[in-house]
Amino acid sequence: MTSPVAAAQEDRAAATRRRILEVAEALFRSIGYQKTAVADIARELGMSPANVYRYFASKSAINEAIAERLLAGIGGELDAIADGTGPAAGRLRAMLRLLHARHLELFFREKRMHDMVSAAMSEHWGVIAAFVARIEAAFARVLADGVARAEFAPVDPVAAARRLKQATFPWTHPVLIADCLEKGVADEAQLAVELDGMLDLLIRGLKIDH
Amino acid sequence: MTSPVAAAQEDRAAATRRRILEVAEALFRSIGYQKTAVADIARELGMSPANVYRYFASKSAINEAIAERLLAGIGGELDAIADGTGPAAGRLRAMLRLLHARHLELFFREKRMHDMVSAAMSEHWGVIAAFVARIEAAFARVLADGVARAEFAPVDPVAAARRLKQATFPWTHPVLIADCLEKGVADEAQLAVELDGMLDLLIRGLKIDH
Repeated sequence: MTSPVAAAQEDRAAATRRRILEVAEALFRSIGYQKTAVADIARELGMSPANVYRYFASKSAINEAIAERLLAGIGGELDAIADGTGPAAGRLRAMLRLLHARHLELFFREKRMHDMVSAAMSEHWGVIAAFVARIEAAFARVLADGVARAEFAPVDPVAAARRLKQATFPWTHPVLIADCLEKGVADEAQLAVELDGMLDLLIRGLKIDH
Repeated sequence: MTSPVAAAQEDRAAATRRRILEVAEALFRSIGYQKTAVADIARELGMSPANVYRYFASKSAINEAIAERLLAGIGGELDAIADGTGPAAGRLRAMLRLLHARHLELFFREKRMHDMVSAAMSEHWGVIAAFVARIEAAFARVLADGVARAEFAPVDPVAAARRLKQATFPWTHPVLIADCLEKGVADEAQLAVELDGMLDLLIRGLKIDH
């Protein structure tokens, strides 16, 4: 058993970790990921850089933890929709609209947010891969439920979840969204309309009959 | 009317242009796009660089013409399938399989081919955009034909053509194919199987009934 003293120490360590992440995220968003040094984070917290390094091995490790926390939040929102009630088609639609909205926020609303997330993507692909796997698992649960409710035709939920992910990359993959918005192929309003059109087609393909 | 002399001169100019492109493409593929200079192309042709510049303003302009010719070839193959006979679904399937195969060739079989095509993509987006528009138009013709034959449910062929293009980016967009192959998410054989799975879903979504 953990002694009350050890437990209190653990609580304090967890609280310090959390404070480091909060301050670092605020600095990454205001100064920018590249320009923020661990020394800046330490100064803002009124602690020594050595103390920050007791909790995180590097700035990159701090960003990894921030990305994990951020994606865990989005994952939680998606799970809540996936495990809700109502027709499976409506849940898939709501999940993909949310995912698209969150991607626009992560990559296109704030330049500094973009740099932070891009650094996480190139340095900590494992965090991103785990998030993608979590999304696919949530899609698969909704698809299996849709089949069980005889709303969707029988289908391998895991394979169909991958298809949903792949068919909607233009709304969730940063490179494809950028292709679209930056080359003026479509603006955000058109993107939203097109996502609904894609979902109409995909859901029609999944439905047990028309 | 063009005089016989002028016509012969035009023929010779077209033949020289064609020879420059053939030699340049061979050098780009053997030495690499970045390492080939206009002087190398001229030497190989036994002409002066100044003479090459009479036909093309720059190496980049030569590459633009090569890309145009290459994409015109693929566009022709796709049009031939699109305007063939048989069920619309089968034609869409054949077109997307061909497009995927050609993208693998362009970007993943030869490193030097990749560099050449990538240079064309960044320097001459207009050529690529025209090719994409041509593909979408070919899809739209097949979709309209499918609706006319009561094979597909009524649909806006232009919008549905865009959906087909978007849903199949994982098999045609160089960044997405690379994501997949280089991160070991899937190999080429799995990619082919997954494309068929995606086409099953999309065609089911288009069909007038199941």
